[in-house]
Amino acid sequence: MKRRDFIGAIAGATAATALTACGTEEAPNKVASEPQKTYQWKMVTTWPKNFPGLGTGANNIAKLITEMSGGRIDVKVYGAGELVGAFEVFDAVSRGNAQLGHAGAYYWKGKIPSAAFFSSVPFGLTAQEMNAWMYYGGGLQLWEEAYKPFGLIPNPGGNSGTQMGGWFNKEINSLEDLKGLKMRMPGLGGEVLKRAGGIPVTLPGGELFPSMQSGALDATEWVGPYNDLAFGFYKVAKFYYTPGWHEPGTTMECMINEKAFNELPADLQSIVRNAIKVANADMLAEYTARNQQALQTLINEHNVQLKQFPDDVLKALKTISEQVVEEEAAKDPLSQKVWASQKAFKKQVMQWTEASEQAYLRARSL
Amino acid sequence: MKRRDFIGAIAGATAATALTACGTEEAPNKVASEPQKTYQWKMVTTWPKNFPGLGTGANNIAKLITEMSGGRIDVKVYGAGELVGAFEVFDAVSRGNAQLGHAGAYYWKGKIPSAAFFSSVPFGLTAQEMNAWMYYGGGLQLWEEAYKPFGLIPNPGGNSGTQMGGWFNKEINSLEDLKGLKMRMPGLGGEVLKRAGGIPVTLPGGELFPSMQSGALDATEWVGPYNDLAFGFYKVAKFYYTPGWHEPGTTMECMINEKAFNELPADLQSIVRNAIKVANADMLAEYTARNQQALQTLINEHNVQLKQFPDDVLKALKTISEQVVEEEAAKDPLSQKVWASQKAFKKQVMQWTEASEQAYLRARSL
Repeated sequence: MKRRDFIGAIAGATAATALTACGTEEAPNKVASEPQKTYQWKMVTTWPKNFPGLGTGANNIAKLITEMSGGRIDVKVYGAGELVGAFEVFDAVSRGNAQLGHAGAYYWKGKIPSAAFFSSVPFGLTAQEMNAWMYYGGGLQLWEEAYKPFGLIPNPGGNSGTQMGGWFNKEINSLEDLKGLKMRMPGLGGEVLKRAGGIPVTLPGGELFPSMQSGALDATEWVGPYNDLAFGFYKVAKFYYTPGWHEPGTTMECMINEKAFNELPADLQSIVRNAIKVANADMLAEYTARNQQALQTLINEHNVQLKQFPDDVLKALKTISEQVVEEEAAKDPLSQKVWASQKAFKKQVMQWTEASEQAYLRARSL
Repeated sequence: MKRRDFIGAIAGATAATALTACGTEEAPNKVASEPQKTYQWKMVTTWPKNFPGLGTGANNIAKLITEMSGGRIDVKVYGAGELVGAFEVFDAVSRGNAQLGHAGAYYWKGKIPSAAFFSSVPFGLTAQEMNAWMYYGGGLQLWEEAYKPFGLIPNPGGNSGTQMGGWFNKEINSLEDLKGLKMRMPGLGGEVLKRAGGIPVTLPGGELFPSMQSGALDATEWVGPYNDLAFGFYKVAKFYYTPGWHEPGTTMECMINEKAFNELPADLQSIVRNAIKVANADMLAEYTARNQQALQTLINEHNVQLKQFPDDVLKALKTISEQVVEEEAAKDPLSQKVWASQKAFKKQVMQWTEASEQAYLRARSL
């Protein structure tokens, strides 16, 4: 029901009550309670509560929904482990135990093979290109198709921008140096690492520091300076590598329980989807503004050594990535369809990026 | 007033009416009309009606406001010349003849010297960096300070991404080739062109094609392939230059009449601001998705020659740009303050872009 119709209904109810009220005592209260109908929603997340960028991005969605709806939807946000575990977010929202879930699609790769393509692809799209594919290149429709069987509506719910290549305790001079390396790396990047001889591990953020400390992990990637500083990785690793070839512009997700969404009137549906859209852009702006300050702190205060992967390593990883992505895509029909769409889009948008922003950035650095 | 309070107020009014209604006949109608209060808003724009990207971006804001408010605010969009001329948008919204205005801040440089810094600066910030400065680097607060005396609230209302360098009928091999060239170039880029010996002209989009045709202009820049194809510049110029050093990530603006905004309840205020924020991100996604297709059409169907400015020309333009920007900033105290903020932010964010996305784009193109 549109708000306009809703108000019309109140007006009608009011007129009726006015007549009835003369004869009864309880009617006015009933009318008063009708328009006050609010929705109590829960958002579960895979991030530690209030974690900079990711957790605050989730909080931002909740705040915007409440603000724009004038309190008609109240969203309570739960950090990882508060209501459900970090990797139970998908199931919790699918079952309707929570109405919203904030996570990264690549975490559900085991359940939905195509999921990784909606998050980040090694040597794939940047944040700006990813948004272009999602909203104007058919990406979001395909994502909706992938989540539909689980009663979920996916949305891009934040972007980290180009991530960092990870924390290491040895220098990476050739592909040989990745052999046998136990490294946290989710999604398709993890598959590339495996093919390059490494041992990829998927762990939620909160478990990375203790795993690095205990030696259960040799290396880890997480997000970028802003988040990595907060987790204190500089205490357990000394080399910080760039660029994040495996996550050039990672899209976070905010999934909505379809049934709960369908129960909302049209204006609130639009508010929910657009609040998420605002948060999607906000997170990228926040990371872009904060990362350099954090990088300076890591280098100047914590003596972290910033390193760049050698071109030979990057070229080899790119070749492996292309194979891995093609093979992963071939595993199920939907992945094939999704990759066909993203691959065609990438080919086209890369040419534009090279002719425009990339050419400009090069000129700016001359 | 928050919607929750608003509903409370209706509830109170309803109860009161219920009692009064027994003795009068007119009260129920009065109650019914109260919550149905809608706002009829006008948006004037500097773009031709429905113009791809710019005009449709303005339409998008109107649609989102109406949709999220459930029709409580109805926005009617006017193209350039329909209600006021392209360059009368600022005054029309300032005077309250329209509640919203969609334009580019650099058009008001004559009125507000600092305005150009909120739009695009030669060799300045990219779209992603600009959003970071606006929302997380203090940029928007400074913009609000600049527009406050005119009763206007500014908002980033779209971004073109890195623009193209313009349409020419002769090759640009050295700075000499810019001498005496009558070229449409607004804002600070125009000042740089002037210093390089050119003759900058500021004209609204709709006048560019006839001016190129008549010879009143020798060259013109506009936006990028998606828009430039629509204007048919390929019919009047054969060389299309990249990169758009003068507009590396142009922020469009959506200004709100402050008085009209203050009359809205809190939920509608939030809806208006966030609708504009969504449109800001949407426009960049649309341009990123559409430009390459248009560029292919220009090259393959219309035989346009894509050219890159030589490094020497770019270096010279960068040096001139630095001088021009410093001198322009020194002209008034607010410009000085705005540029000090953006300059500090640029220094920091450029380092991050170089270490992350720029390093990644280079690796992707290896």
